[in-house]
This record gives sequence, C-alpha cells and structure tokens, in this order.
Amino acid sequence: MTLPARLTGVIPPVCTPLNPRGEVDTASLTRLVDQLVGAGVNGLFLLGSSSEAAFLTDRQRVTVVETVAAHVGGGVPVLAGAIDMTTPRVVEHARAALAAGADAIVATAPFYTRVQPQEIERHFRELAHRIQAPVLAYDLPVAVHSKLGADLVLTLAADGVLAGLKDSSPDLGAFREVLRELRDGAAGEGFAVLTGSELIVDAALLLGADGVVPGLGNVDPHGYVRLVAHCERGEWKEAGAEQDRLGRLFALVDEGSPGRMGRGSSAIGGFKTALHLRGWIDHPTTAEPQIPLDERETERVAHHLAVAGLL
Amino acid sequence: MTLPARLTGVIPPVCTPLNPRGEVDTASLTRLVDQLVGAGVNGLFLLGSSSEAAFLTDRQRVTVVETVAAHVGGGVPVLAGAIDMTTPRVVEHARAALAAGADAIVATAPFYTRVQPQEIERHFRELAHRIQAPVLAYDLPVAVHSKLGADLVLTLAADGVLAGLKDSSPDLGAFREVLRELRDGAAGEGFAVLTGSELIVDAALLLGADGVVPGLGNVDPHGYVRLVAHCERGEWKEAGAEQDRLGRLFALVDEGSPGRMGRGSSAIGGFKTALHLRGWIDHPTTAEPQIPLDERETERVAHHLAVAGLL
Amino acid sequence: MTLPARLTGVIPPVCTPLNPRGEVDTASLTRLVDQLVGAGVNGLFLLGSSSEAAFLTDRQRVTVVETVAAHVGGGVPVLAGAIDMTTPRVVEHARAALAAGADAIVATAPFYTRVQPQEIERHFRELAHRIQAPVLAYDLPVAVHSKLGADLVLTLAADGVLAGLKDSSPDLGAFREVLRELRDGAAGEGFAVLTGSELIVDAALLLGADGVVPGLGNVDPHGYVRLVAHCERGEWKEAGAEQDRLGRLFALVDEGSPGRMGRGSSAIGGFKTALHLRGWIDHPTTAEPQIPLDERETERVAHHLAVAGLL
Amino acid sequence: MTLPARLTGVIPPVCTPLNPRGEVDTASLTRLVDQLVGAGVNGLFLLGSSSEAAFLTDRQRVTVVETVAAHVGGGVPVLAGAIDMTTPRVVEHARAALAAGADAIVATAPFYTRVQPQEIERHFRELAHRIQAPVLAYDLPVAVHSKLGADLVLTLAADGVLAGLKDSSPDLGAFREVLRELRDGAAGEGFAVLTGSELIVDAALLLGADGVVPGLGNVDPHGYVRLVAHCERGEWKEAGAEQDRLGRLFALVDEGSPGRMGRGSSAIGGFKTALHLRGWIDHPTTAEPQIPLDERETERVAHHLAVAGLL
Repeated sequence: MTLPARLTGVIPPVCTPLNPRGEVDTASLTRLVDQLVGAGVNGLFLLGSSSEAAFLTDRQRVTVVETVAAHVGGGVPVLAGAIDMTTPRVVEHARAALAAGADAIVATAPFYTRVQPQEIERHFRELAHRIQAPVLAYDLPVAVHSKLGADLVLTLAADGVLAGLKDSSPDLGAFREVLRELRDGAAGEGFAVLTGSELIVDAALLLGADGVVPGLGNVDPHGYVRLVAHCERGEWKEAGAEQDRLGRLFALVDEGSPGRMGRGSSAIGGFKTALHLRGWIDHPTTAEPQIPLDERETERVAHHLAVAGLL
Repeated sequence: MTLPARLTGVIPPVCTPLNPRGEVDTASLTRLVDQLVGAGVNGLFLLGSSSEAAFLTDRQRVTVVETVAAHVGGGVPVLAGAIDMTTPRVVEHARAALAAGADAIVATAPFYTRVQPQEIERHFRELAHRIQAPVLAYDLPVAVHSKLGADLVLTLAADGVLAGLKDSSPDLGAFREVLRELRDGAAGEGFAVLTGSELIVDAALLLGADGVVPGLGNVDPHGYVRLVAHCERGEWKEAGAEQDRLGRLFALVDEGSPGRMGRGSSAIGGFKTALHLRGWIDHPTTAEPQIPLDERETERVAHHLAVAGLL
Repeated sequence: MTLPARLTGVIPPVCTPLNPRGEVDTASLTRLVDQLVGAGVNGLFLLGSSSEAAFLTDRQRVTVVETVAAHVGGGVPVLAGAIDMTTPRVVEHARAALAAGADAIVATAPFYTRVQPQEIERHFRELAHRIQAPVLAYDLPVAVHSKLGADLVLTLAADGVLAGLKDSSPDLGAFREVLRELRDGAAGEGFAVLTGSELIVDAALLLGADGVVPGLGNVDPHGYVRLVAHCERGEWKEAGAEQDRLGRLFALVDEGSPGRMGRGSSAIGGFKTALHLRGWIDHPTTAEPQIPLDERETERVAHHLAVAGLL
Repeated sequence: MTLPARLTGVIPPVCTPLNPRGEVDTASLTRLVDQLVGAGVNGLFLLGSSSEAAFLTDRQRVTVVETVAAHVGGGVPVLAGAIDMTTPRVVEHARAALAAGADAIVATAPFYTRVQPQEIERHFRELAHRIQAPVLAYDLPVAVHSKLGADLVLTLAADGVLAGLKDSSPDLGAFREVLRELRDGAAGEGFAVLTGSELIVDAALLLGADGVVPGLGNVDPHGYVRLVAHCERGEWKEAGAEQDRLGRLFALVDEGSPGRMGRGSSAIGGFKTALHLRGWIDHPTTAEPQIPLDERETERVAHHLAVAGLL
C-alpha cells in the first residue's frame, strides 16, 4: 500500500519466528501477522529491535519483508528497519527492503563509528536522497549510544527529509519538545511521531504522539489496541488501567535469570516464549548468541500470561 | 600464506582508498600495500576501524580482501575484520573474507544489541566453530560499548577458541593481566597479543605484547618498524624518542574542526589526507556520512607531515 | 510544621540568592520565598540541585535552612537536601538541616564512590535510622551516575525507611512502575511520589504522581500552580497548553553559549538571571566555578520572560 | 616539611584505619604510617580514594591530617586530598588540611554538577589562588565522570597553577602526551607527574612518570619501593617480575563477592583486611555504607598474602 496521510495507532515491531536451525519460519511469521492484523493494529514494523534485525542475515531480512508484504497485500502499511552502521550499508538494506515490498524505511543514526550531529544530519539527508522513499528516524540510545536532538529532528522534518520519528529514548521531555514544535508549525501535516515507550503509551498520547510501536504488542495486540482507543476517546482512567495491566504483563521480559543471560536474551526470549505458549509461533528459538530461556523461566512466563488472561 | 606460529611486529590496519564516487580504488590500495610491505611491516589488517570497515558494503569488503590477498600472494599474513552486530552476520562476513583470501579473522563482541559476558563467550565459540579458521578477538570499547574481560579472553585462549587478541581498549592494566596469565601458562604458545594503542607501543611491548596495529602506521610505517625494532633490542630510550616523534605526528587526526565534524571524520580524514599528500593514494575521499577535511585543515595536516620529515 | 499526611502539589527547589562576594543573600532569599508562597506553592525544597547545594559550604547550607524555616514559620513544609557522597557525611548534613528547622530530608544514593544496590539500600536504611526523620530518596542519575531501581524504592517504602521519592530521572516507565506498585499496596498511604521532570508534569500527574519539584517554578510559580490545578481537575487540554507555555519558557536555561560554558552554568545562570530581571533577587550571581551569563545572554533570557508575559 | 623540588617515587594513598564505631583509629594510623615510612616510601597521600576520604566527616579528615603530619614531623612530604564537589567546598577542605599540617593539596575537577573544561579550568585557578599552596590535579574519571584533558593540564602547569598531576585514568596515551609536552618545555622543572595505575608502574615510569600512588602500596610498600628502584636503574626485566608479583597480589581487591557487594566495598575491604591480617591495623572496619568482607572472603585475602610471602 502507499502510506496513509500519517501513520497512527498501534504498529507492533513484529517478532521474527525462527526454526530450531535459526532460519526464518515463514509459516509462523504469517500466522503471527494474522493475529496482529486481526487484533486491529494499524501497521507493521518489520526488522526492528524486537524483530532481532541485528541478528538476521541479509537474506533472512529480505525473506521477512517479502513474506509479510506479500501476505498482507497492502492491507496495512509495512515499515521496515534498515539497521546498520553507516550510510552506504543502510542504503543497501533500505533498497532491498523496498524491493521486497516495504512502504517506508526506519533507520537509526550511525553507530559503532563515532559521529556528531553534523554527520548524523548528513546521514539522514543522504539516505533519503538516495532511496527516494519515506524515512522514519529511529531514536534508540540504548543501542545506538547517541540521542537524536529535538533540533535535528525538527530541521529534518521541516526540510522534508524525514517522514516521521520512532522515539525509543526514555526522555519524554525532549519528545514533547518535538511534538510541541511540530504543532507550532515546524513541519508538514504528515510527519508521524511514534513512541516506542510501551509502558507509558497513555502519557505519550496525552502529549500528542500519533502512535506506538510496542514490543509487547506482539504478545497482547488486543490490549494495545484497546489502550490506544481509550486514549483517543480521552478515557484516561480506563487507559491507565489497561496500561497498568500491560505493565504487569511486561514483567515477562525479566524472567531470564541475570546470572545466566543478559537483558537482551531475556527480553526477546520472553516475547518469543510467550508467543510460543499462545500457539502463535511454532518455536521459541532466538538467534545466536542469545541464550534461550530454560524450563523454569518458561513457566514463569506462562504464569504472567495466565495472570493476564492470555493463557 | 598460512599464519606464522605467532603474529608479531607491525600489522597496520590498512586504510581503504576510495575514489570520489565512494568506490574502492584498488590501484591506490595496492600502491599503499606496496609502501607498507616495502617498509617492512609484518602483516596487514584489512577491514578494521581505520579501514572504514563500518562504512563499506559487503561487495566492497570482498573487493578489498581479494585485491590485497592476490597482490601480496602470501608474502605477509593477511588478517580481515568481520565487523558486524551479531554471530550470524559476523559468520557471513568471515566466510566471505576467508573465501577472498584472508588468513585469519578479527571480530568484536556483539554490539547494538545488549549482551553480557555469557553471550559474548557464546558468540566467539560459535563463530570459531562455524568458520574453522583462526579468530582474533578485537577489544574496542569506544565502538562496541563493552569491554572484553581478561577472564573471558584467557578462558577462550585456553580452550583454543581464540588465536589472539587485538586490544584497542585504553586499559593497559587489564592488558597486562592477560599477558601475565598467558605467560603463566593459561594458553598455548601461538596466542598473539596485539595492541592498538599506537601512542604507547614501547610500554605495551615492555609488558610483553607481541605486536602493534597502528592506524598511524599507514602514514609512517617506517617509524613503527623502527620503533618495534628498538623495543625488541631493549633500546628503550631510542624507542621512546621514536614513539614521541610519532605521538607528535599523531596530532594530524585532530585537525578536523570540532565545530564542523566529529572525531571519527577528523581521524580518518587526517589519515587519508596524509596518504594523499604523500602520493600514496589518489584521493583523500572518506565514506559517507563522514565530513571531508577542507583546504585549511588539509594544510595543517601537511604541516604535521613536513615537521615529521615525511613531506 | 510537621509534614502533611502526604506531600503534594508544587514544591519548587528554591534557588539560593548570592551576593557578589558569593555569600547567601538572605534578604533576597526571603523575598523569593514570599513570591513562591504567595503564588500558592505547597512546599519548599531547599538545598537541591537548583539551589546550588553542591556549591554551598556547610555554614551557608545552614544559613539557608534557618532563614527560610524561620521566615515561613510552619506555613508550608520545608524539605532540605543533604547532598554529599556517603552515609556519614549525609548524616551530618541531615542533622544540621533538621536542627535548623527542616521538616524532612532529601538524599541521593552515594556518589563519587562506586556502589551497587546493596550499598545504596544500606545507605538509606542507616540514614533513616540515624536521623529519625522523614527521608525522601532523590533519584538524579545525571549527577549521581546511578539509577534507583523501582524494586529498591518499593522495598524501602514498604519497610517505612523512605517517606517519598523525588524522581529526576528521565525514565517515566520506571516511575510508573513505582506508582503502580504503590497503588497495588506496596507501601503505606503517606509515601509521596514527586517528579522533577518539569517539562512533562501533566504526563507525570496523569500517571499518578503526587507533585512536582520544578526548577523553573522559581521563575514562574504561578504557571506551575495553574498547571497542577488543571491536572487535578482532569483538564488535560488546558494543562497541556500551560505546560507547553512553560516548555517554551524553559529555553532560557540554554542561553549560556556552549562555547563559553557548560550546561550547568547556563541553566542555573538562566534561572538566577530571570529572577534578577523579575526583581525577585538582588544579584544574578552564581557560585564558583560556574561562569556567569554575559550581557547578550542576559538579553536573551529577558526576551523569553517577555514572551511569557513575565516582564 | 616544605615540598621537595619535585615529588618522586612511591607515595601511597594511606588507608584510614577505623575502629568498630567508625571513628579514626589514630594508633593504628600512626602504626601504618611507620610501616610505610620504614619501607622507604617517598611521601604520603592522605585523604585519597583508598583513604575513604569520601566517607570521612570533616572532623575525621582533620584528625587524619593532624595525626600523620605531627607523627612524621616533616620526615616525608604529606599530601592531602580535598575531595568535594565544587570550588567553595574544596577550598574549605584545603584550608583545613593545610592548617592541620599538609604540605600540598590534591583536588579533582568538580563532580555531581555538570561542568565543561571551561569550568574545570576556572575551578583549579580559583582554588590555587585562594589557598596559596601547591595543588596537584587528581584525574579520576571512574569517580569524577570527566577526564582532565592533556591541553588543560598543560595550560595550568605552564601558568604555575598546578604543581603536579595525579593520574588515575586508564588512558596512558594521554598521560604520555602530558609527559612529552612537559619535557618539550611546557612547564617548569618542578611539575610532578604521578600515576595511580598501580598495575603498570614500570610502563608509566618508562614513559617518564615521576612516581606512583599505589593503593596496594599500603599492603606491600616494600614491593613498590623495590619496583620503582628497578625502574630507576633501567632494570626493566626485574621491574616486570616485581610488578607481575604485585599484580597477582592485587587480586585481593576482588574477593568481596559480586552478589553481596559492589567493587568499592570489595577493594577497600580487601586492603583493610590485608592490613589487619598483617597486624598493621587493629580493625578491618570500613566506613558506611560499605559492606564488610565475611570470614570466607577474609580467608581468601589471607591466601593471597600467603602466596605473596606477606603472611
């Protein structure tokens, strides 16, 4: 599909089901997508952090986009991450994703290499120029180790370089500054501001965000669709209750034992284990070198699902 | 060539000359390699940070390794970086580099994703197992945002997973711990410990390091060859004088104006500008989104070369 | 006064006026306090970061608390920061502040020294035990370089060690977790949750925060009192508009030129310059080694005040 | 005593013995000082990080300086740390230490507050101007969270503001730059460059450092005196062997169990436990909120001492 006038609502970062050999399990992927679309999400974000984009080979990345784009057939907008270190490499990923059917590209600032705002600006300008497709900036300091400044985002929005922002930084104050300046006229109508802060969606939407990209939305898409609907109707009390319920469910990302694995293994493992327990994907397999949840940890994830009424 | 019993001496991280369109300038690359080999370096490290590996596309990376491996024809060992975020992606780069003629692979811990020592250990084990070729661990906290612990390196050395360490962390205390424990018998004879700390080579070799991987060695390979020779003969005073001269020359990496560019642009720009001024490569072009040095900054680089007697 | 059942509303971190010799200007201090109390604030937080507590000598700290406590005479609760590196030093500051008339103590985790959650927990337990007065934990990662975990805060709340939390971390997700668990019964009724995030007060109060500690509340206390009143009445649209107005005014903290000074000098300088321009304090003097705003920067602060209708 | 023309050799940061009530144990302190002086150290550094300066009250800090200065009676130079957040507070500590008998003051850049090089320069200039006594800059990024730039140190050295540098940063490259520029004439003869890197003293002295401030020097002062003597005679092989022995002994700082305490508790606890086991101090007590070593951890420290021939 072509993108809507502005991206809004719930756009989950779709997990990438893998089979035990580490290859993309396309049957599980389309099944998961059907669950998400059936729950009423407003778009799909492929190849983001929760999709394990950082772990997928180039070939696997293309498989994911081709599979989903062909499956949804324009029913909802399909965004694809082009996660790599620098402009030339990001351009290649972006072109491959567009060729495979993506409607828009999501890209971070350069990482691994040491850059300043000057190089970051140049990166997004060059990327947008070379791919001639909508680009959303992905602000993810925990992975990229730099923060996109409000000034930089607003300049690139005003110049038409960026079509939107996916903000996964913890700093809601800077996020609000972007929203306020956009409302004050700093960019066109179509610029989409999406939050990745899945635990404070009500707060982000109160401030004016257009939508949310919740990793937990893979596991409970209905909950996030209800939450956003409450926010849109100004039902803040009901929104808060739904968000609190999702917040408790989110504890499933911390069940991987700290002594045995890092937080990344635990979070992705928690999501995939929950999807497997719900019967939406065939294997809870995560990509190397992540450490899989063991039986006891899996039971604790199951407990969270049961408490949330999802099992 | 097959690797020597142990890598030693000067192994510069070879800059990757680009033409103004951003493509690999293979003629300049072989010319640069001839200069380095002619100066007496003991090996070549392709696709490292100073090689702009983070900026090169997969195709360009293969071109670099193929060009150099074919050109040197086994005359010196050729190491190749396999710089990417996670195990599956690093394995693909490593296989491509080995197929193109590399003798050994240099790889960092995972980055972008959040990992702990457990996942880092799993990463190196899986990598070595899957490529069946010598792997050197590359410790570069400024880019990778984690530090390889001495314990982890020593365990992987003792188990034969790693063939060496390229240490570009600033922490010489931890570096010495690795060297001391290796001497005390923690691993086999062949394990190579290389330092990337190009400003304190004498100190690193005093502690027992086997060799150095100096970015500035592109610009002044003769200097580093002399420096290492002094160290090997225990001529610490002469070594110190040579290292001090190289330390002054190193100021050329800081000539990119802070207001205009970041430190990465300035450093790589400084190296390539110096190589261009020396006539060793045809263009000072750096990869996107790095910002090139301007005329005034180029003159300051030229001044440093003149003072060092290289122009 | 004794503390109210629970601290709520607007509790500004009171700036500490200094005369040109760097001594506390008590006349300006009481004048500023009169303005704040007259605007309807619900409490005063002395010796916080905006009060330049880090710069005041022990004697000056006592002068500030004595002056204000005597002046307000129990009219509003008076909180005092006990900002120092470790338990024994914090205990001394806390005792001095209580003796000078403070109603409660605000303290951070240890800093300068390297601590883990175990030592942080011990710090707060020992502090509360030794001073036998209400202690609020001050979470300020930008200064303290560690983050108070939600688990730790909840444990100390449940055990009656802490009387409240002043959260100046950017992570609203963790903040919400504390609020949710408190509502779910993790601690008694009296535990106060205050946010230092002065740019997203509406969002924080939507999530259930009890009050706000806004540095900008020195300059525009009426604005923050209106903002909180809107939030309490569920007038989120009006609250958003007021918060946006205050957000624009907040730009006055960035008028100190980056080339000339750091962000701390610029922010404290901006507040004090604004207070001086409003006629509420006699000198814009900031403590050493902060760099004062110059004439041009002062004019820009005046411009922000004029736009906000405060001059 | 007045300071020597230049500080050189071994200057241990003297541990502060405490009794079980947390008060300074002056009898143990003088006994420890006697051991250090008897071993041939060249000076004493009181109130540094290994002295738990961050934990001592103002009164306790004065007690330490008075006790030691009176006890050594000018026999060796006595340096005192003035560890606090900002200029006015550091000035007060410095004056108190000088009045108590210190010969020179050691001070860090401001911390807790956010400063840039401009404020750091102003801090040292104001401090030196106000106390009119020798000031050594203390570069300790792990605690202060900023790094003193070589340029800044050299400027302050050339202007006579600083009498020396105590470098406890891991970056030996920057350290060498300071040493090289000083040799090239950037400052007067008397400027002392001391390293806090107790694990690479031979490397630091090879580069030209004047002396070392080793925390482990409390436990094995004879070892450090021998090590420096070897370096001064150019006996690098013997120096390396001695340093390796001390490096193995240094493992005693890691015996506090990670699950039970942070690295600070473990390191200071390790030093004091070792001093207690050697019979040099009466109690291994550390200051609050540090967690003491337990019996099993103490046994492991004893084992390290036994292996080193110190028990």
